[in-house]
Amino acid sequence: MNIHAKRIKDLQQMLKRDKLDAIVVTRTLDVGFLTGYYMDDYMLLVSRSAAWAFVSQMLLEDFKAKVPFVEPVVYGGAIEEAVLETRKKARLGKTVFDPEYETYNRGTFWRRNGFAELGGLVGSLRAIKEGEEVEDLRKSCRIAARAFGVIKPRVKTGRTELSVYRELEDIMQSMGAKGPSFNLIIGFGPHSALPHHVTSERRLRNNETVLIDYGCVYNNYCSDITRTWFHGRPGEEFRKVYSIVAASQKAGLAKVKAGVNSRAVDKACRDVISDAGYGQYFIHGTGHGIGLEIHEFPRVNTRADVTLRAGMAVTVEPGIYLPGRFGVRIEDSVLVTRTGREILTKTA
Amino acid sequence: MNIHAKRIKDLQQMLKRDKLDAIVVTRTLDVGFLTGYYMDDYMLLVSRSAAWAFVSQMLLEDFKAKVPFVEPVVYGGAIEEAVLETRKKARLGKTVFDPEYETYNRGTFWRRNGFAELGGLVGSLRAIKEGEEVEDLRKSCRIAARAFGVIKPRVKTGRTELSVYRELEDIMQSMGAKGPSFNLIIGFGPHSALPHHVTSERRLRNNETVLIDYGCVYNNYCSDITRTWFHGRPGEEFRKVYSIVAASQKAGLAKVKAGVNSRAVDKACRDVISDAGYGQYFIHGTGHGIGLEIHEFPRVNTRADVTLRAGMAVTVEPGIYLPGRFGVRIEDSVLVTRTGREILTKTA
Repeated sequence: MNIHAKRIKDLQQMLKRDKLDAIVVTRTLDVGFLTGYYMDDYMLLVSRSAAWAFVSQMLLEDFKAKVPFVEPVVYGGAIEEAVLETRKKARLGKTVFDPEYETYNRGTFWRRNGFAELGGLVGSLRAIKEGEEVEDLRKSCRIAARAFGVIKPRVKTGRTELSVYRELEDIMQSMGAKGPSFNLIIGFGPHSALPHHVTSERRLRNNETVLIDYGCVYNNYCSDITRTWFHGRPGEEFRKVYSIVAASQKAGLAKVKAGVNSRAVDKACRDVISDAGYGQYFIHGTGHGIGLEIHEFPRVNTRADVTLRAGMAVTVEPGIYLPGRFGVRIEDSVLVTRTGREILTKTA
Repeated sequence: MNIHAKRIKDLQQMLKRDKLDAIVVTRTLDVGFLTGYYMDDYMLLVSRSAAWAFVSQMLLEDFKAKVPFVEPVVYGGAIEEAVLETRKKARLGKTVFDPEYETYNRGTFWRRNGFAELGGLVGSLRAIKEGEEVEDLRKSCRIAARAFGVIKPRVKTGRTELSVYRELEDIMQSMGAKGPSFNLIIGFGPHSALPHHVTSERRLRNNETVLIDYGCVYNNYCSDITRTWFHGRPGEEFRKVYSIVAASQKAGLAKVKAGVNSRAVDKACRDVISDAGYGQYFIHGTGHGIGLEIHEFPRVNTRADVTLRAGMAVTVEPGIYLPGRFGVRIEDSVLVTRTGREILTKTA
């Protein structure tokens, strides 16, 4: 069976399990995950035994050719009215929408028409990578990891952050990526101390830190990796901070395994940095899920309370940031396996 | 005054005009428009006389340096609770949120805490381009237009759609663009008949249609342009359809002017195509606003009812699509002026 047809079946199983009659799916990425057809302005209604896609006339031919396992319903006026009509015709009872992503206006419309709120159904399917998507994610991560070996020797004194940004994109595209998976962060010197630095025209000088946080999209799947190094001769403090972050990341990675709570991964990273006296400079969570989005379920931080399962993919990315001076972050994308983990962004 | 500080002042004027005390702004692009600082996971509360940004510890230093005209409030727990607390301390009364973009969950939270729904305030500010953003938009469009002259002679028999996609991106980046403004549509042969075709590995053959719908992002501003041509010797039907679409687009462009309803632009395009007997093959709206987003307010279609104003920027992009055979679309990005229009994507 086609992987997408299987996902719709999986969702239908969840409807049965949760005693629901139907779900309306409106997020572009969720709809694309279930059909393989990524496009704005269309949506799905999935019942226990059927699935309808509400598409404009403009998409119809293409949709029919590419998604033969979902019945298209062409709408002329408001797409939401077409959903209501099909729901009525099919005599569907309890129907849910995801209140975490639906807009307030549309959610209110669904509520007025008797729909209920229930988040996370499609999200929990998306969290477990399987079949060809594991291969796509591996490939996406492998491209990012290989690109590191190419770009690193080219980061030389006088180059701007943005020129590195563009070259890194080109390198990944030449290796088959569609494009970058987010606004890549290239930070030189004190810019490395800003976890969300916006890549700028600043030029690299001798003897300063280089931090590159990047990734690509391959067949819709996002990779994420960060490497930090010293351009020149590192002083004692850089070497110390770097080794603490490296030990922290190693400790976090070692925790990743099916059955472990994501908080335990965060704690493993945080403890190493705190014990070394730099706790106040680790100012963000340890990681996040990756997949169709660069940030998705599950989060890996002090508040997250998610049991890792085989097939989940997350980042582990502790950091220490000394304002106005320099920062070090080391990040890998990892796949959770039954017995441990597969590091997807290994670099030489 | 800094353009962003001015925009916050403009928004504060709207609050006074509409007898509101405050607005919470949560969309990344809206927040970025008002501050110049584009980042996820932070939000603004703007009252008639003050503005607060709710930022994580991680963003604080960078935010203070870049947005000195907005007061940062660091949140530790839920960002929404921090907004409520500041609103209470400042004794703000009627506070609104945008129900068109806020999520159902968060909108419900605001409602429970006495906020009201009001859409379009920031959207209407964003619709009128002024100052440096006009320059950014012009530059973005100029890059796209210049790239056409470079790519067209390189589209040769045997090349894949995706290879053209990647080269077009590279060309625009080499001219200063950050990246593409959307998933560029490169369609060869029958693929040109699919308005939302997903660029593929298909190779160009002799004697078929080439349609390229593309644009770039320059300083956050998006351009959009479509060109269609025949690779080889066009037959009579292609020439006929092309000249109808060209006449339709010319008629639409001629209508663009401050004070004109956007529907009149759509009608001008549609009439030419209908009169020529191809009405059923023009299966989408005529255009859309462009700016920080590739699709934004106002829309230009049969249902839109918006009076164009000087400073708005829209696309005019009629098309005729003959399923399984070929399609022709011609699109330009235009700036509405008091006396008419400035075509931003003129090609030789």
